[in-house]
Amino acid sequence: MTVLVVAGTHGNEVNAPWLLECQERGGGAIDQHGLAVRYLIGHPEALAAGRRYGDRDLNRSFSPLLLQDQACLDREVIRARELLALHGPDGCDPAAVAIDLHSTTAAMGNSLVVYGRRPADLALAAALQDRLGLPIYLHEGDPAQTGYLVECWPCGLVIEVGPVPQGVVRAAIVEQTRLALEETLAVLAAARQGRLRLPTHLVVHRHLGSLDLPRSAEGRVRGIVHPSLQDRDWRPLQPGDPLFLLEDGSRVSYTNELAAVPGPVCPVFINEAAYREKGIALSLTERQRLPCSPDWIAALQSLVAGLVADA
Amino acid sequence: MTVLVVAGTHGNEVNAPWLLECQERGGGAIDQHGLAVRYLIGHPEALAAGRRYGDRDLNRSFSPLLLQDQACLDREVIRARELLALHGPDGCDPAAVAIDLHSTTAAMGNSLVVYGRRPADLALAAALQDRLGLPIYLHEGDPAQTGYLVECWPCGLVIEVGPVPQGVVRAAIVEQTRLALEETLAVLAAARQGRLRLPTHLVVHRHLGSLDLPRSAEGRVRGIVHPSLQDRDWRPLQPGDPLFLLEDGSRVSYTNELAAVPGPVCPVFINEAAYREKGIALSLTERQRLPCSPDWIAALQSLVAGLVADA
Repeated sequence: MTVLVVAGTHGNEVNAPWLLECQERGGGAIDQHGLAVRYLIGHPEALAAGRRYGDRDLNRSFSPLLLQDQACLDREVIRARELLALHGPDGCDPAAVAIDLHSTTAAMGNSLVVYGRRPADLALAAALQDRLGLPIYLHEGDPAQTGYLVECWPCGLVIEVGPVPQGVVRAAIVEQTRLALEETLAVLAAARQGRLRLPTHLVVHRHLGSLDLPRSAEGRVRGIVHPSLQDRDWRPLQPGDPLFLLEDGSRVSYTNELAAVPGPVCPVFINEAAYREKGIALSLTERQRLPCSPDWIAALQSLVAGLVADA
Repeated sequence: MTVLVVAGTHGNEVNAPWLLECQERGGGAIDQHGLAVRYLIGHPEALAAGRRYGDRDLNRSFSPLLLQDQACLDREVIRARELLALHGPDGCDPAAVAIDLHSTTAAMGNSLVVYGRRPADLALAAALQDRLGLPIYLHEGDPAQTGYLVECWPCGLVIEVGPVPQGVVRAAIVEQTRLALEETLAVLAAARQGRLRLPTHLVVHRHLGSLDLPRSAEGRVRGIVHPSLQDRDWRPLQPGDPLFLLEDGSRVSYTNELAAVPGPVCPVFINEAAYREKGIALSLTERQRLPCSPDWIAALQSLVAGLVADA
């Protein structure tokens, strides 16, 4: 079993593909910590065209329903099946872990996205947060957003770096991506050797829901992200904090009714260009401190025991 | 005669279109300084699709050759003809001045682009620089880049604001655009009333040429913009300053051979996403201080004498 590293799942996110280019052509930019790693461009056709996708979002195309629907011949669903046939858990060159490298126009910094609460994922994320301090977006319970790539592997997460415009390679974004990826491989190598230790707790930002831009009854956009909110990803919202600036100069403010939870409410993915078509101007999360369970490390260790060393 | 203000000439530059939306729906966001102004979305179809263009770049489609070539039915050339029929100097509702509002992923700040050295354009740019301190990119003498919209009107310039990702509305970018546009209208109103004064000099950044990313003999990209150069638009380059970071970690540096001119050489449009397909990683300019000629103000005044007041 190997580790699968995917870049360019969205064709206009070009920083991670450049990192892979440096790895392949420049002579090993990435320290693999002794592990066998498979590098792949998720969506070569979209990358060449500089577009997010062709028929549908590839990173929403890994749902069992779509994958099994043989009538569905959307290019991204076909590509999802290909990736699974190649490196899926039952593929010809199977990977135990999938790391999917993304970038965003939002000021997310260097961050992790975890889908649901699989113990091995939480162990990996907790160890990464312990080592690099990365914030974690825990995406769960949103029926409108499903079918993520890493969910098809026994363990996996997204490394999400921003802000960077679509179609622009910035050296600092490439470097942040490399740093998070190398540390991920270091954690997996440590787990494989039985020497991984977890912190007592990790802090997650649990997905609560998403807010669209203000719209008229006919669906016309009537406002934009308020300048005071722009670039404030991960920072707690207080009642009265401005969210949107309307076309007439007035504002829409945050109220407690938007998210009735005990913990601090923090926005993420503020003004991500690609989410406009999904009707998402930002997502709201609840900051939670979770105790790390001994089960997590056991789950990760049993998964990565089968990882092979770099030839 | 009126003033024509165009937004969304590139469909993925969405900040100026939002400003026009606020003007139309929000009840007059823009102070017109008493002038009659026509507001237009340059490329509604591309704006709706969130793409720069369909068949070809609209802001390279205003060349006489293309416009007169009746065999050319590219969507953008057809649209260029439409815009000219509507508000061209000989159109049914003619404009004397065209202001074209753009945004960029490069850190250009709030800036002006002037095409060639038409006296009325230079008067307008000099007055704007005097009032707001905006840097001016003087684009001339590049046979590879022609057919700009504003060149088809007797007077006109581009307001170029960045950095902002494609497809993202940022309130601060909208505000910078509004500020530069209002001051442009204020200058035109002052010229119309014969009370415009120019400074003794203006500073321009004269286009020298463009640099592509480093490539292999087969055309494959081998490097990216060096992190030390990123966001350093308008700042003089010194020999030895890094330009590009190659895939093997080495660098390409600036040398005097790249631009043998007496004045300081300054890069502009560093890492603009849309210029990748044009083979432009950045452009080089020479900073020059030009004395303002009395002819300029006379040319602008005679042009704007026919502007009508806002109804």
